Amino acid sequence: MFKLSQLFFRSRNQLTQKRLFVEAANDFQWLSGMSTQAGLSTARQKFMPDGRSAAKIFAPYSIYKGKAALSASPIPPTFSKLESGGFRVDRRGVIALTFWPAVGERKYDWDKRQTFALSATEIGSLISLGSKDSCEFFHDPSILSSNAGQVRKSFSIKAHDNGGGYFISLSVVNNILKTNNRFVVPITTAEFAVMRTVFNFALPHIMGWDHYTNQPPKSVDENPPKVASEFMATEWDR
Amino acid sequence: MFKLSQLFFRSRNQLTQKRLFVEAANDFQWLSGMSTQAGLSTARQKFMPDGRSAAKIFAPYSIYKGKAALSASPIPPTFSKLESGGFRVDRRGVIALTFWPAVGERKYDWDKRQTFALSATEIGSLISLGSKDSCEFFHDPSILSSNAGQVRKSFSIKAHDNGGGYFISLSVVNNILKTNNRFVVPITTAEFAVMRTVFNFALPHIMGWDHYTNQPPKSVDENPPKVASEFMATEWDR
Amino acid sequence: MFKLSQLFFRSRNQLTQKRLFVEAANDFQWLSGMSTQAGLSTARQKFMPDGRSAAKIFAPYSIYKGKAALSASPIPPTFSKLESGGFRVDRRGVIALTFWPAVGERKYDWDKRQTFALSATEIGSLISLGSKDSCEFFHDPSILSSNAGQVRKSFSIKAHDNGGGYFISLSVVNNILKTNNRFVVPITTAEFAVMRTVFNFALPHIMGWDHYTNQPPKSVDENPPKVASEFMATEWDR
Amino acid sequence: MFKLSQLFFRSRNQLTQKRLFVEAANDFQWLSGMSTQAGLSTARQKFMPDGRSAAKIFAPYSIYKGKAALSASPIPPTFSKLESGGFRVDRRGVIALTFWPAVGERKYDWDKRQTFALSATEIGSLISLGSKDSCEFFHDPSILSSNAGQVRKSFSIKAHDNGGGYFISLSVVNNILKTNNRFVVPITTAEFAVMRTVFNFALPHIMGWDHYTNQPPKSVDENPPKVASEFMATEWDR
Repeated sequence: MFKLSQLFFRSRNQLTQKRLFVEAANDFQWLSGMSTQAGLSTARQKFMPDGRSAAKIFAPYSIYKGKAALSASPIPPTFSKLESGGFRVDRRGVIALTFWPAVGERKYDWDKRQTFALSATEIGSLISLGSKDSCEFFHDPSILSSNAGQVRKSFSIKAHDNGGGYFISLSVVNNILKTNNRFVVPITTAEFAVMRTVFNFALPHIMGWDHYTNQPPKSVDENPPKVASEFMATEWDR
Repeated sequence: MFKLSQLFFRSRNQLTQKRLFVEAANDFQWLSGMSTQAGLSTARQKFMPDGRSAAKIFAPYSIYKGKAALSASPIPPTFSKLESGGFRVDRRGVIALTFWPAVGERKYDWDKRQTFALSATEIGSLISLGSKDSCEFFHDPSILSSNAGQVRKSFSIKAHDNGGGYFISLSVVNNILKTNNRFVVPITTAEFAVMRTVFNFALPHIMGWDHYTNQPPKSVDENPPKVASEFMATEWDR
Repeated sequence: MFKLSQLFFRSRNQLTQKRLFVEAANDFQWLSGMSTQAGLSTARQKFMPDGRSAAKIFAPYSIYKGKAALSASPIPPTFSKLESGGFRVDRRGVIALTFWPAVGERKYDWDKRQTFALSATEIGSLISLGSKDSCEFFHDPSILSSNAGQVRKSFSIKAHDNGGGYFISLSVVNNILKTNNRFVVPITTAEFAVMRTVFNFALPHIMGWDHYTNQPPKSVDENPPKVASEFMATEWDR
Repeated sequence: MFKLSQLFFRSRNQLTQKRLFVEAANDFQWLSGMSTQAGLSTARQKFMPDGRSAAKIFAPYSIYKGKAALSASPIPPTFSKLESGGFRVDRRGVIALTFWPAVGERKYDWDKRQTFALSATEIGSLISLGSKDSCEFFHDPSILSSNAGQVRKSFSIKAHDNGGGYFISLSVVNNILKTNNRFVVPITTAEFAVMRTVFNFALPHIMGWDHYTNQPPKSVDENPPKVASEFMATEWDR
């Protein structure tokens, strides 16, 4: 345990700058659905309905353990602007989990990272996990391409036998690159409590529900359009 | 139970109900991609006390299952502007649930949708549901019209016998159209956890309590009226 | 129960306008600590650090039952502006509970209302209440005046014997006016769930903690003042 | 446990720590009414990406008991501005706990205060504490200096034997000043509920996660680059 904590900070100090920009690249790739270097060039204009800036934020929750590190970051949804002036969720947000291996004492190799993006329902599963429970999810990141089935990711979180925390693991079998990676990060009850709290916080946001509600009061018109009174009662929409 | 729910809607101001469902109609048109001009023309001006925009947001949480789909969206409250410059809740928000049937493999018919709008207290009931519990609500959407009693909606959520999730169902008996629709959507524990988390998040917002608190600090005067310091009692208002 | 719900709305329809301004008066009295008609005249200037408006909001959660009604509203804290430009909480916020009696069929008498302002710790007690628990608080609103001891308020919330909800009651013994009022409002589990959720939401806000965190990222200086480097390490402030 | 905690602080960048405690010092000066010019002169310029003000807020949650008082305040993270225009967390926020002793009836001596800054994971530990549980943390505030090991702080929170609340204590052994301070503050279940609620609220904020999500909707381009539609994989980033 002693060494683990040292590793945490050494790796942070040395690698922060590098990691940072890789993360940025990942983000852009997620947003655009792209997986190549060109991903960065697709950074799209952000539409700001109220004129405020929407600067990109990097604030991952990172856990460094003996054999691997784990980092969690929310990725907000994107919206399509409608002709009416409204916004429709175009792509749901996720919580992106990144695993990268320890490759020596106090060294972690970010270049060997693998990611797993938790959907809203997967987050629901994780935050409702009992102290004895487990859950497991499977993703195929190339499911819609001609490479479907070539890469298989399985994520699991399993309670320790003794009840004090969980094992979080990710396996990635890549038949194209002929690679097979497995990461296991044991987390404490306290670390899981942090994840549950911030995932719970993030869930409405990655679903876009915060935008329903962060708006100022809107009053009804003094003189509502006449047509309104021709419509019927609550739930009577057909 | 039936009469209580009737009262709930009967007691609502008739014009308010009408207004509500113009909004709801707009929502459903966007959700389904049917955004006719007629629908758009009922969009009312929004009053923005602080000059920020309040663009309409569409970010439903949707669950597609074998026989039907279920979608949940918060609808914020509306406010009346007071002569004092303050705002009073005019109509409480709701969480609108929409059900629509499967009509073939991977095909769902939005035109056959039915809606049920959960009030604050109904949401309280739902989010406090134990893993073995059930609850049921009854609405009559035309309670204030000459069609009172002609349409009866009953919504229920019941724990699976095996403890792993819930059945959510809506029955709509419409004696005017001579229709009788029933939707059942089984949801997993994870899906219920998402609903509980985002309903919990949305509840203060649909009640308007976020507007009490999203305001910047307001300081007392540098020189408060002398009289103020002569009265100490917080609850001494009569 | 049938009649209760009718009462809810009849009283709302008829009395809304009146209640509204009485509530407003109460709020101003709380903010200024005043208890007289002059209370309204003490409406102080609001300082808005970011130039946004801070319109007053009225969005009580109200429960109408057979013998009395109960309404809950958060009252945000006030801040003193410091010479540094910062803000210090001047008066903590509260959740104001107002009780007023039924005085006939479908009639509630707002003029006979009594209020009880829950502090942060009292809210903590209430939101952590188990399904079999009770708690009770005592206030003397004139404790700092020459009338100390003349008015005694006791508030309690007690679980139903059958486990389905709570009784909320307020007793006010006023030896000056020679009055003795008692209100009891039975609430369901669902209504308590709403209160717990929105009180939980409101708690950080009435304590002013939302203002720590609603701010945009602040970066460190490129060139921090030299003096900073003369101070020691974390927690090493003496 | 001891070594792990030492590592925690050792690993922090020394300059950062120094900066932190200038801020902390400012806080304490304001809390105690000791706002010397020296303290104020260290206030750094705040960078505001969206032009809004970020006035400093003082809203501690304070508990006064027989032998000591305890106060909790969140300290938001600081961010570094990136060349890309984004922001990276530079130093995580904490919840600063301050203890100061009673020195007579209703008298407390702020000059004898000691502080303990809870990290995100320590907060996770505290908010997940069961009603019979305990936890303990160790810090060495001068771990990076030549005084390493000279000051040892241990913080603990332990359930009352009778289940009604907790004892919160801080011991500070300072071998430089030859002092040994111990503070014990018994807290009720209600006070702990307030702490758990507001710590839970503050946790995503001190981690910087609120900045991921307080942004307005950002829409995709009207005409996204053609290439984007050719890559579908969310997690297909390498």
